[in-house]
Amino acid sequence: MAHPLLAAFPVVVEQAVVWGDMDSYKHVNNVVYFRYFENVRLEHIRRLDWFQYEADTGIGPILGSTSARFRKALTYPDTIEIGARVIELGSDRFTLEHLIVSRKLDGVVTEGQGVVVAYDYRQQKKASIPDELLRRIEALEATVGRKPASRGR
Amino acid sequence: MAHPLLAAFPVVVEQAVVWGDMDSYKHVNNVVYFRYFENVRLEHIRRLDWFQYEADTGIGPILGSTSARFRKALTYPDTIEIGARVIELGSDRFTLEHLIVSRKLDGVVTEGQGVVVAYDYRQQKKASIPDELLRRIEALEATVGRKPASRGR
Amino acid sequence: MAHPLLAAFPVVVEQAVVWGDMDSYKHVNNVVYFRYFENVRLEHIRRLDWFQYEADTGIGPILGSTSARFRKALTYPDTIEIGARVIELGSDRFTLEHLIVSRKLDGVVTEGQGVVVAYDYRQQKKASIPDELLRRIEALEATVGRKPASRGR
Amino acid sequence: MAHPLLAAFPVVVEQAVVWGDMDSYKHVNNVVYFRYFENVRLEHIRRLDWFQYEADTGIGPILGSTSARFRKALTYPDTIEIGARVIELGSDRFTLEHLIVSRKLDGVVTEGQGVVVAYDYRQQKKASIPDELLRRIEALEATVGRKPASRGR
Repeated sequence: MAHPLLAAFPVVVEQAVVWGDMDSYKHVNNVVYFRYFENVRLEHIRRLDWFQYEADTGIGPILGSTSARFRKALTYPDTIEIGARVIELGSDRFTLEHLIVSRKLDGVVTEGQGVVVAYDYRQQKKASIPDELLRRIEALEATVGRKPASRGR
Repeated sequence: MAHPLLAAFPVVVEQAVVWGDMDSYKHVNNVVYFRYFENVRLEHIRRLDWFQYEADTGIGPILGSTSARFRKALTYPDTIEIGARVIELGSDRFTLEHLIVSRKLDGVVTEGQGVVVAYDYRQQKKASIPDELLRRIEALEATVGRKPASRGR
Repeated sequence: MAHPLLAAFPVVVEQAVVWGDMDSYKHVNNVVYFRYFENVRLEHIRRLDWFQYEADTGIGPILGSTSARFRKALTYPDTIEIGARVIELGSDRFTLEHLIVSRKLDGVVTEGQGVVVAYDYRQQKKASIPDELLRRIEALEATVGRKPASRGR
Repeated sequence: MAHPLLAAFPVVVEQAVVWGDMDSYKHVNNVVYFRYFENVRLEHIRRLDWFQYEADTGIGPILGSTSARFRKALTYPDTIEIGARVIELGSDRFTLEHLIVSRKLDGVVTEGQGVVVAYDYRQQKKASIPDELLRRIEALEATVGRKPASRGR
């Protein structure tokens, strides 16, 4: 079961911090946190069954921007839980909020966001988020009793 | 000589995009851009001679937050130039602005920021930016005729 | 419980293949397998309690050489088990054998080796493997009924 | 011009060691050397114009195995030169020898090998090395006066 701090996140990935994630300062390198975000973002996509939807329609996800705020340093060994939830839904994009919780520190170590844009890989241009995907996103958030804010839809 | 788009950046690092920087979508993976930012950030630190200053005083840099906006996709082979400049100076931190320019595309592919916080590694707590470092930061920006904005100093 | 193919490996680490482990050919990049090996090698060191031993004595591990043979391609999503066992014990080094098993493919995807050398980080030179560590290595292998070959001890 | 130690290597790539290549021991992590090998291997492929040949014929390279022996530790900052040359030519594969030379240490830090296998990506099976590629490989080695040994051709 997910950490209580992640109770309102519909998608949570758990993974071990590995020794090689650390840099010369003997804590996890800042770049690695974006790989952690990517791991949960891909799990979010998988839970939406978007990979199959992209194969069928050509409309896939592309990352438009991302950010992280580092609050505490992670060190090996530790196990983390990485959460993702949709906090804003636009016409051609949505914003994921991330939280990384350390088991060893029993608290949040990093928070961040990522903007996922719908992209038509066949026509090589941005696309609107199809209604079908929109329904799946809302259904996934509803599993933890949430309803993302809409902007410009 | 740096690309004209980077004329107002005092620190510019040039490097080849390597094949392994790309992911399954056959463009450079989002995580890698933060490594590019780190490369120029470390060069900025080196140009300030902050490594030696940290060895002498215990006061070193720590990354507080960072962000990137992806405008165009990079692909191998290409050569990039990564710029860093200080756009805001606070009492215990400063903000670096980054720009990544692709030679092949002859334009900006990614822009971002990073907030560098002064940290006293001996006392394990945040520190003020020492006057000596402040002077070096301002001298480095002055090499391209810039003067960073101050906030809360 | 470990996969039957890893029954004779005293140390086994399980982990998810993440999307970002793949490269442009849409299979796990060759470099990443060495990170997988490192992950189980560090777990082997942890099981020997060698980290504490290094802190006490200054004698730590250093990787002298490593190799991998790639038999099948891994793809995301999958879960792997990575095994490590000592196949040869020398006076100042030992050889780890690695096997990576894919759950999805139900078989071995990669095999490899790594030579771990004892290094005196205080005196900055190679060291003999202390008897205490030797006993721990043999005890760990004995948990799966094995006794590593000796060479030059 | 390449370092004298690499005079007999037809393909040499030069690159800066970046800070993030180092791990907690404050030297370049073992995994990173395989990325260095990959960088020069891809340059070797590029010099053979094999990317275009793969697009035309479906026959591309796949890495069958690789190994490294670590002789000295690299640290940031440094610049390295990575060499590749073919030391053995088989019917469906060839063996690359690698050498990494440090400018700062003025010597070899790592040596290694990689076996590149011809693979028919259209038919999803191993392939013979086409005569055209064979000629290109031999012509490339001839630029430094070398002729690779043949085995089983």
